[in-house]
Amino acid sequence: MNANTSASVSSVPAYMDAIGRRARAVSRDLARAETGIKNRALAAIADAIEAAAPRLKAENARDLEAGCARGLDAALLDRLGLIDARIATMAEGLRQIAKLPDPVGAIEDLKYLPSGIQVGRMRVPLGVIGIIYESRPNVTVDAAALCLKSGNAAILRGGSEALFSNQAIAACIREGLVAAGLPEAAVQVIETPDRAAVGELLRMKDYVDVIVPRGGKGLIERVSRESLIPVIKHLDGVCHVYIDDSADTEKTLNVAFNAKCQRYGTCNTMETLLVSAARAVDILPPLAARYTDEGVRLKGCERTRAVLPDIEPATEADWDIEYLAPILSIKVVDGLDEAIEHINVHGSHHTDSILTEDYSRARRFLREVDSSSVMVNASTRLADGFEYGLGAEIGISTDKLHARGPVGLEGLTSQKYVVLGDGQVRQ
Amino acid sequence: MNANTSASVSSVPAYMDAIGRRARAVSRDLARAETGIKNRALAAIADAIEAAAPRLKAENARDLEAGCARGLDAALLDRLGLIDARIATMAEGLRQIAKLPDPVGAIEDLKYLPSGIQVGRMRVPLGVIGIIYESRPNVTVDAAALCLKSGNAAILRGGSEALFSNQAIAACIREGLVAAGLPEAAVQVIETPDRAAVGELLRMKDYVDVIVPRGGKGLIERVSRESLIPVIKHLDGVCHVYIDDSADTEKTLNVAFNAKCQRYGTCNTMETLLVSAARAVDILPPLAARYTDEGVRLKGCERTRAVLPDIEPATEADWDIEYLAPILSIKVVDGLDEAIEHINVHGSHHTDSILTEDYSRARRFLREVDSSSVMVNASTRLADGFEYGLGAEIGISTDKLHARGPVGLEGLTSQKYVVLGDGQVRQ
Repeated sequence: MNANTSASVSSVPAYMDAIGRRARAVSRDLARAETGIKNRALAAIADAIEAAAPRLKAENARDLEAGCARGLDAALLDRLGLIDARIATMAEGLRQIAKLPDPVGAIEDLKYLPSGIQVGRMRVPLGVIGIIYESRPNVTVDAAALCLKSGNAAILRGGSEALFSNQAIAACIREGLVAAGLPEAAVQVIETPDRAAVGELLRMKDYVDVIVPRGGKGLIERVSRESLIPVIKHLDGVCHVYIDDSADTEKTLNVAFNAKCQRYGTCNTMETLLVSAARAVDILPPLAARYTDEGVRLKGCERTRAVLPDIEPATEADWDIEYLAPILSIKVVDGLDEAIEHINVHGSHHTDSILTEDYSRARRFLREVDSSSVMVNASTRLADGFEYGLGAEIGISTDKLHARGPVGLEGLTSQKYVVLGDGQVRQ
Repeated sequence: MNANTSASVSSVPAYMDAIGRRARAVSRDLARAETGIKNRALAAIADAIEAAAPRLKAENARDLEAGCARGLDAALLDRLGLIDARIATMAEGLRQIAKLPDPVGAIEDLKYLPSGIQVGRMRVPLGVIGIIYESRPNVTVDAAALCLKSGNAAILRGGSEALFSNQAIAACIREGLVAAGLPEAAVQVIETPDRAAVGELLRMKDYVDVIVPRGGKGLIERVSRESLIPVIKHLDGVCHVYIDDSADTEKTLNVAFNAKCQRYGTCNTMETLLVSAARAVDILPPLAARYTDEGVRLKGCERTRAVLPDIEPATEADWDIEYLAPILSIKVVDGLDEAIEHINVHGSHHTDSILTEDYSRARRFLREVDSSSVMVNASTRLADGFEYGLGAEIGISTDKLHARGPVGLEGLTSQKYVVLGDGQVRQ
């Protein structure tokens, strides 16, 4: 058991400093830990979680009880709950990450240069990663597993609603780490509910290499504003589908429907549909019927309402809103140029898709749309680490530096140059 | 001619805002500019610079005169001077960068996934790059050329000592851009000597994607501290050479000498020599003789001074100093573990080299030393974009996120995901 329970935290700065110092110290051991040992730790954590299921549920019940007393809404309580299926999924997730290739130590592009040296780049962990997230306790396991596999020390700060659940999970993680011979400080879960701990974490430049916030916009904005440490984040997902003149009707109806309706609350859900004027009359009525049947509220520009007179008018503000709800704004545009311009100005550089059978316009869309994922004839909902073959993801970045788009194990690493010589000197 | 001469700058914030706005606006044109057009612009700038040599020298003379009057030291005046050979080198540099492959648009790892979509990553410009540098006017040309080739808009801020020279060079750059049909705002040189312009630049998050400071430690520290925009930088170069038990004597004498003496003032110069205790007696005397003949002042730990009794004692503080001068600190260590520990604690994560013929120790050094370049049997002075085959470099990064080590054209780009589908949706 970790002695730092919330009750014993007398000084948040001192408590956090100790956590940071330990994380930095063990990060070197993790960086050189062999793949087999990291995988054994992941498997041991999975075993510990399965064995501790009764305890996890008991601690989770304390969180749920406190949440009810505090009047948390049903959706939040649902996300907080640790039922058997979720515990099984956490264990399964750990075993999946154990099976992924280890990115650490991989050398790329090693080649001889004129001086006779060989130069290449070796993938290395970032060092210490701080992850700040909201109520879902399974994030504790996912984040710990991704950091461990990528050779990074982790400092995790979950939502206060999940405090008891996260502490119980943390105990399982420590048990697995120790069983595999790794330091238990490889993954540290902050155990004070004091919000000042987050502020401290965001200022520990000497101990923490990168911060990953996972949660709602309020959390991500606070973290971005306060952090003195680089942040891997996405702010908004104002995603677009553009129906081009030459779009195939069948594919269009399927993809435009899926992009909006497969799930409403996710960052890669379409929020604005752009339609080339040439297709407004034939495509909008059947598509609108499908949306309306599904309960999606439609808002349109004037040209849209000329075809769909019954829908609400969209205002200028609508083009910039991430609804995260069954609401869709629709705009008729003159063609590809206006669509690209609209996306680059009003979008959030997250994920945008063109529906077209035209080779040259597909090529231009891919090149000119400045988003972390650009697609041709595919649903924006496919922008996801699993769908992209990364095996797992810690989030989706809409930043341009370092990682852009879905961030998997590789996004939690960096590359250093390795130089192999035989006595070469600079002339 | 650009109308914004220093005399007409009434409000620095308004002046900088206009520059930022223009840079952001043209960055989209640059992102989609064809390789051939960018290369023609680089060639046209080279021609314009050669044709303008008399004017460049006349404007440079005004800077030199003002510098003399302000009492600048001889070394600074030397770096400021635009002689014919330097003008020819600038033009040659532009033509070299035109010959490098264009990183923009290159797609990596495009592969089919189980859902039937193809997913890959396309290299894209960062957008707008701000570069802040000190007196050498040739940096204006180098930085402009690297940003242009990598498809980025550039905002350049040179030292006030080089104001007239930089304005004359800026006119040549604009001439070349326009001749190739690119917007002249693709490269903007800040023309006010007011230091407040730097502060404004560092706060223009909406217009500028990354800041690259090039210059002394004071400049880089100020920029890192004040910038609200991500910075690509290196702070210190406390580089090490470690002479292992099995080091080849001949290679060691050459490499350890070159790493210190080939140039003193560069960030990849060795500042501390580590020697395994097993080799102190046979290696240190001949090596010390070579350094002393060259005029290098030696400082040593107690164990070093047992072998070289005439040298000064090194203090603890010496292990953390970047001398940038003919001074070398020497420490005898017990072996590889102590060497790696010393480098990771006292080094600046820049460039470190092991001299060894032992396979396993070379392998461990490469994996465990946490620096942007790790080397076996090669001089630290080889850590350089040209020596690494990058063709050019805008600097060396000791950061871990995004770019690490020498930063060439690729370091000024990012990658977005491209997804090619045939109507795929999320299940």
